[in-house]
Amino acid sequence: MVGEDLIPYCTIPAIMESVAHGETDFGVVPIENSIEGPVGITLDSLAHKFDLKIYNEIIIPINQNLLVNPGCRMEDIEDVYSHEQAIAQCREFIQKNNLQPHYSISTANAAKSIIGDNSKAAIGNAKTVELYNLEILEENIQDTDNNQTRFVVVSKKDHERTGNDKTSIIFSIYEDRPGGLYNILGIFQKNNVNLTKIESRPSRKGLGKYLFFVDFNGHKNEKLISDIIDEIDKNTYFLKVLGSYPQF
Amino acid sequence: MVGEDLIPYCTIPAIMESVAHGETDFGVVPIENSIEGPVGITLDSLAHKFDLKIYNEIIIPINQNLLVNPGCRMEDIEDVYSHEQAIAQCREFIQKNNLQPHYSISTANAAKSIIGDNSKAAIGNAKTVELYNLEILEENIQDTDNNQTRFVVVSKKDHERTGNDKTSIIFSIYEDRPGGLYNILGIFQKNNVNLTKIESRPSRKGLGKYLFFVDFNGHKNEKLISDIIDEIDKNTYFLKVLGSYPQF
Repeated sequence: MVGEDLIPYCTIPAIMESVAHGETDFGVVPIENSIEGPVGITLDSLAHKFDLKIYNEIIIPINQNLLVNPGCRMEDIEDVYSHEQAIAQCREFIQKNNLQPHYSISTANAAKSIIGDNSKAAIGNAKTVELYNLEILEENIQDTDNNQTRFVVVSKKDHERTGNDKTSIIFSIYEDRPGGLYNILGIFQKNNVNLTKIESRPSRKGLGKYLFFVDFNGHKNEKLISDIIDEIDKNTYFLKVLGSYPQF
Repeated sequence: MVGEDLIPYCTIPAIMESVAHGETDFGVVPIENSIEGPVGITLDSLAHKFDLKIYNEIIIPINQNLLVNPGCRMEDIEDVYSHEQAIAQCREFIQKNNLQPHYSISTANAAKSIIGDNSKAAIGNAKTVELYNLEILEENIQDTDNNQTRFVVVSKKDHERTGNDKTSIIFSIYEDRPGGLYNILGIFQKNNVNLTKIESRPSRKGLGKYLFFVDFNGHKNEKLISDIIDEIDKNTYFLKVLGSYPQF
């Protein structure tokens, strides 16, 4: 992935579609944030819409900043614009400063929308400032400092074994069998394989019916891991292996 | 709750605050949607911010409609406004009709913001139409028909036993003990108590660290259930009992 061309897309499904249709070789999409949790559209697209592999993962610390027009002071600001997740990450700051939050389709859009109006501020990353001739009025305004976002690189092909790998799967359990999830977790337990993530998502089949997104250590080309996957397959209603890739 | 006064609040935390401060006796907040999943702000507020009980639950089917100014036709519309969850629930409709989505703070706000402009539509429920003198151009535009939202009634007090109850708890497991979640699920399994929901949320302490929101059958005043809660308490790092309440 060195020296590749970068192509921006407006939305997460558009990124995935470009990979699925072969316009691009790899796509980078956010999958979870340490404060706000799963990125629903990414999980749902991987589960229901595209047959893509997770080829790699990237974890990036997120710092949110209050962006304003040059010369604007805190007391001038009434409204603040940003993407819903960024607004959510800065709830306490927004409340403390008595600002009215507004949702934008992206943080870049938010920054653009405040140009020339001192009653408005945007929340976003420092890069946006140069693009739209704005200033950073306050840095690191997010509610907590443990703010990281995990991105995955999606592709049509799998990553080879590196010896320090993770595997991601999605499964759903039989509704009419008690202890379904317990039994699946038991398969990992008895093989001493560590889960690094477990996330439930609605299966879109009604309340109380879930898909489980599970990440665990190991590569699916290892015998132990492929045996575990086979056993899970026999005990679940639905199983999709999203791929094996190097641990970040 | 019959004949009570209804007071609208702008945000979910404002509803909870009003109950916590005794301005209101009960608050009704959405907790999960069958398509879009958990309502993060509700779960986070229950876990981290307020010491409130779940007193009851209500499940409501959600139908989204395309709201327009009187006489407006589909070919007039370029932009569509709604709350982020409603936009997410109607992704396919929006894409098919080539509309540009915009996020609003609420569906009511969205409806208000399109008044008098035929190039704009809003997504929301049928009630909004009368309020703002709009029309429904298309009904039931959500992507799937299994669209239900579960609301909980929060209160300072507990609900008494009815014989058909559910209990909601939040817990986090010790990071350094393998199989933590597996062991907790085993407590339910060996007592033949059914889980009706399991949801993971980031604990805000970094990626891969989770709070688990679990609902199960039974009331915490039953001996079996209180024994289960005691055993979970001994085996978790953090436990919060959100309350027992009649099953919807």
